[in-house]
Amino acid sequence: MPVTGPVLVVGAGLLGTSVGMALTRAGTEVHLSDVHPANVRTATALGAGRARPPGAVPALVVVAVPPDHLAACVAAALEESDAVVTDVGSVKSAPLATVRGLVDATALTRYVGSHPMAGSERSGPLAASAALFEGRPWAVAPHGASTEPAIRAVTDLVLACGATPVRFTPDEHDRAVARTSHLPHLLAALVAGRLSDAPREHLVLSGQGVRDVTRIAGGDPALWQQIIAANTGALSELLRDVRDDVDTLLGALAAGERGPVAALLDRGRRGTSAIPAKHGGPPRPETTVYVVVPDTPGELARLLAHTGEIGVNIEDLRIDHDPDREAGLVELTVAAASVDHLLGSLGDRGWSAHR
Amino acid sequence: MPVTGPVLVVGAGLLGTSVGMALTRAGTEVHLSDVHPANVRTATALGAGRARPPGAVPALVVVAVPPDHLAACVAAALEESDAVVTDVGSVKSAPLATVRGLVDATALTRYVGSHPMAGSERSGPLAASAALFEGRPWAVAPHGASTEPAIRAVTDLVLACGATPVRFTPDEHDRAVARTSHLPHLLAALVAGRLSDAPREHLVLSGQGVRDVTRIAGGDPALWQQIIAANTGALSELLRDVRDDVDTLLGALAAGERGPVAALLDRGRRGTSAIPAKHGGPPRPETTVYVVVPDTPGELARLLAHTGEIGVNIEDLRIDHDPDREAGLVELTVAAASVDHLLGSLGDRGWSAHR
Repeated sequence: MPVTGPVLVVGAGLLGTSVGMALTRAGTEVHLSDVHPANVRTATALGAGRARPPGAVPALVVVAVPPDHLAACVAAALEESDAVVTDVGSVKSAPLATVRGLVDATALTRYVGSHPMAGSERSGPLAASAALFEGRPWAVAPHGASTEPAIRAVTDLVLACGATPVRFTPDEHDRAVARTSHLPHLLAALVAGRLSDAPREHLVLSGQGVRDVTRIAGGDPALWQQIIAANTGALSELLRDVRDDVDTLLGALAAGERGPVAALLDRGRRGTSAIPAKHGGPPRPETTVYVVVPDTPGELARLLAHTGEIGVNIEDLRIDHDPDREAGLVELTVAAASVDHLLGSLGDRGWSAHR
Repeated sequence: MPVTGPVLVVGAGLLGTSVGMALTRAGTEVHLSDVHPANVRTATALGAGRARPPGAVPALVVVAVPPDHLAACVAAALEESDAVVTDVGSVKSAPLATVRGLVDATALTRYVGSHPMAGSERSGPLAASAALFEGRPWAVAPHGASTEPAIRAVTDLVLACGATPVRFTPDEHDRAVARTSHLPHLLAALVAGRLSDAPREHLVLSGQGVRDVTRIAGGDPALWQQIIAANTGALSELLRDVRDDVDTLLGALAAGERGPVAALLDRGRRGTSAIPAKHGGPPRPETTVYVVVPDTPGELARLLAHTGEIGVNIEDLRIDHDPDREAGLVELTVAAASVDHLLGSLGDRGWSAHR
C-alpha cells in the first residue's frame, strides 16, 4: 500500500531527510520540521519535502531526533494530532516507557516504534539519500496496545522506503541490538582504545583483522553515548557475561590452562557461523581468492571485467593495500565451486592470483 | 641480495609451502621436510621445492611449525648444521627463551626469529601461494646476540618473498602483536560468543558492523590457543586493562553516569585514527559512496569500468548484500575531494549512488 500523506518528518538529519527523500520519490507529500531551520532548508533543497505549512495536519509522523529527545517528541506528536506516530531510534523500550508516562492510553495506541538498520559514519541532512534504506532490515516494534491500522501504516512506510520490515516486541528488539550492535560497538571501542595508548611504531603490524574489529569505533561518540544510555539493561547483562569471560581468560593464562581458552575460542567460532548469510538464505560455501592489482584507476575495473567474462559472480570484495608500494591485494569471495575455474582463467589473462 | 640455498623449510603447511614457492620462483633451491610426508608431496607438487635429500646441508633453515613445536624444531636445526635459522611463528620471546635453554651460546647467534603478517583463514599446503607475502609487513626480530650476517640472511629471505622487513626486538614484537592481533582476536571471539547464545531470530538485525567485528573469530581455535598460550605476559596486561574498562562501563551504566562511557568512546575513536594509513603514509581524507548494484556477473565490472572512465581511484570497496533480493549495495571509498565528481558522473551513467 502506498503511504497516505501528508507525512510529517520531525528532525531533518541523516535518517529524517532520507525518509523524506524516499517518500517524496514515491509520490507522498512530506512536511519537515527541525529545531535547526537550516536543516529544513538543506533537506528541502535535496528533495525531501517542504517546511511544515502552518496548521497542516499529518496522517503519519516520523520522529527522527537524537535518542535523548525522542520520547518527548513522540509524546508531543501523539498529543498534537490524531496521526499515527513512529520513530527511527536505535532503542525501543526506554522511550516507550517514557512516552507511556506522558500521554493517555488512547493516544498511545497510535504509537508504533521502529528502527531501520541503516546509517552512515557521517551524519546530518547532507549525508542523506533516498536509497539509504534499500534492501535493509527495518525493525517494526509495536507495543501491546498498538492498533493494527497503526502497525500497517508503519509497515507501509518501511516498504515505501525500500526496506524489509521485521517484527519485534520493543524488549526483544533491544535485547537483539544489544548483542548485534551495542556490545560490538563498545568492545570495538575498547580494542581501539588500547591502540591509542600504543607506541606508534608498534602499529605498523596492524593487519586487516584489527582494522575490521575497530572500524565501527570510529562512529560519533556523542550519538553512541545516548544509544548506550538508553539500553543499559540488556547491555549490562551482556557486559557482565563479557567480564566473566575476561576473568576466565585471565585465570587460565595465569594458571597455564588451555581448556578454558579453547572453549571460548570454539564458542566464538560457532557465533560467527550463526550470523545469517547476507542473502538471508542458508550459508553457501564460499572461498576467498587473492589477486595482486596495481593501485591505479582502471586496473580494478579491468580485473572485474575479466571476472565478468569468466562468468564468476563476486560475492564480496576487499582491497588490502601494500604498505610500501602503490599496489593492492584484492580479496574476491566467490562460490567455492567456481574457484578452480576462476584461478585458471585469471592466470590465463595474466593476473597473479591465489587462494 | 638473492637468498643463498639450499634453504630447508621445516613444516610444509600454509606458511612453509608459501615460502618454498616464493623462493623456488626466485631461483633458490628449496628442500622440504614435514612430520606428515603427505604435506611434502603436496608442497612438491605445488612447486615449493623437493623432499630433503639425505645428508643435504642447508645454508638457511626456515622453521614453519605450530607454536607448540617451534622451539624444539629451532633448537634441533641450530644443532644439526651451521645454517642460519629463522622461524615464522606469531610470538617471539617465549620460544627464544626455550631455545636459549636448549642450545649453546655460539649456536644461538645463528638464530633470528621472524613473523610474516600474512595468512589465511584456511590452513595446510593447498592454501599456499608464492604471492602470499607480497607487500605484507614481515617482522624481523633478532635477539641481542644474533650476528649481522644472520640478520642479513633473514632480511634477504623476507625481500625474496616480496614482503617488507620491519625490525623489532622479540619483546617489542610480542607487545605489538598482543595489541594489534591477539587482543582483537580474543575480544572478537567474546563478541561472537554472545551471538552463539542468541535466539536465531534476533540475528536478522546483524549489520556490517558486527560482521566486521567478529570476522577473525572464525580462525582456527587450535592454532589460536597455541598463539595465546605463547604470549600470556603481554596479553594478560592488556586483558587486565580491558577488565578495568568493562568494570568502568558497568559502574557507569548502573549509576546512570555518561562521562565514563563518553571517555571510553572518545579514546576508542582516537585509537581508530592511530592505525597507519594502508599506504603507510599519512592518513588521507576519504569518503564512502554507496551504489546499488544488481547481484549478477558483470554488473560490478560495469560499475568499476565506469569509475575508471570517470578517472576516480577506488581506495577500498565493500559489498553489502540485500538480505531479500539478489542486489547489493557497494561501498566505494574514494578521496574526499573526488566525491562530488564521482556522484555526478555515476548519476549521469544511470547508477543510483549516494554518500
